[in-house]
Amino acid sequence: MLRRSPLIAANRRENDAEHSWHLALMVMVLAEYADGQIDVERTLQLVLLHDLVEIYAGDTFLYDEVGARDQAEREQAAGDRLFALLPDDQCAEFRALWDEFEARSTPEARFAKAMDRLQPLLLNFNNRGGTWRTPGVTDTDVRHRKSVIKDASEELWNYAQMLIDLGAERGWVPRSGR
Amino acid sequence: MLRRSPLIAANRRENDAEHSWHLALMVMVLAEYADGQIDVERTLQLVLLHDLVEIYAGDTFLYDEVGARDQAEREQAAGDRLFALLPDDQCAEFRALWDEFEARSTPEARFAKAMDRLQPLLLNFNNRGGTWRTPGVTDTDVRHRKSVIKDASEELWNYAQMLIDLGAERGWVPRSGR
Repeated sequence: MLRRSPLIAANRRENDAEHSWHLALMVMVLAEYADGQIDVERTLQLVLLHDLVEIYAGDTFLYDEVGARDQAEREQAAGDRLFALLPDDQCAEFRALWDEFEARSTPEARFAKAMDRLQPLLLNFNNRGGTWRTPGVTDTDVRHRKSVIKDASEELWNYAQMLIDLGAERGWVPRSGR
Repeated sequence: MLRRSPLIAANRRENDAEHSWHLALMVMVLAEYADGQIDVERTLQLVLLHDLVEIYAGDTFLYDEVGARDQAEREQAAGDRLFALLPDDQCAEFRALWDEFEARSTPEARFAKAMDRLQPLLLNFNNRGGTWRTPGVTDTDVRHRKSVIKDASEELWNYAQMLIDLGAERGWVPRSGR
């Protein structure tokens, strides 16, 4: 499934496989910045499968408010269909991992979700805007949508805010109220 | 880096990010077929970073005998350059993981390498030939190049051989000596 974020130094958008691999490498490199210890194995598994449901449900863009209305419903139906392809024990295991990711119910899931928010931010910053240039999106929206990073790592959240501020300063995302 | 294997049901070749993500999911699903217990976390890390050196060294096709001559040298130089971008402790950690993968010195590395060989085989079989149709390649070559799977899992090796036989039977790869 093609995502919206353009790749750095490539004239095309990333796909879910590339995105998920990128998150997994980020987990390997950045796990030490988690607030408190996390289980790296489970965090890797969470990011590796977090977008699998998009095979059936499609990609819902972070700033798409219409698509967001039935996103949960579409993705749950996709999950039911997809994980049922596995043997019963693995179906239950994969489903539980995906539910954990979606609910952000553990430190691992919160860190996985933080990677999922931080990675497009890195792409957008390094592309001098990227999807930040979507009409109507302001720095306040970006900060709001990215704030889940705070629940996983104070240090990475400070870094993310610094990039958003710098992006606004350089005109890659308009400041709200201007 | 674009690899040779075409994707299933897609009119283009896979790239290293897609390939590595695919291997990681295969580790999650197939680890139970390893001969003996393996550490899933390290196996995931091994497959996630095993092709990173191709950023600088390029992709060397499995059946390219000329490229194979200086492949190790090119990839070692790429590894030196690439992993040095990380802080010292992570540089050493990533380098050790990559060396472990290359040397197949542990059950985890042997399983990771088995996934690296099995995945293109699945692509080729499901593409009714794929890179098996490279001029000069026969079923004996394929069996020879894929035999490292045997060092990780008897069950997966039996499955791989079954696919190669079926591929030869269906004319997707020529039988040697014909």
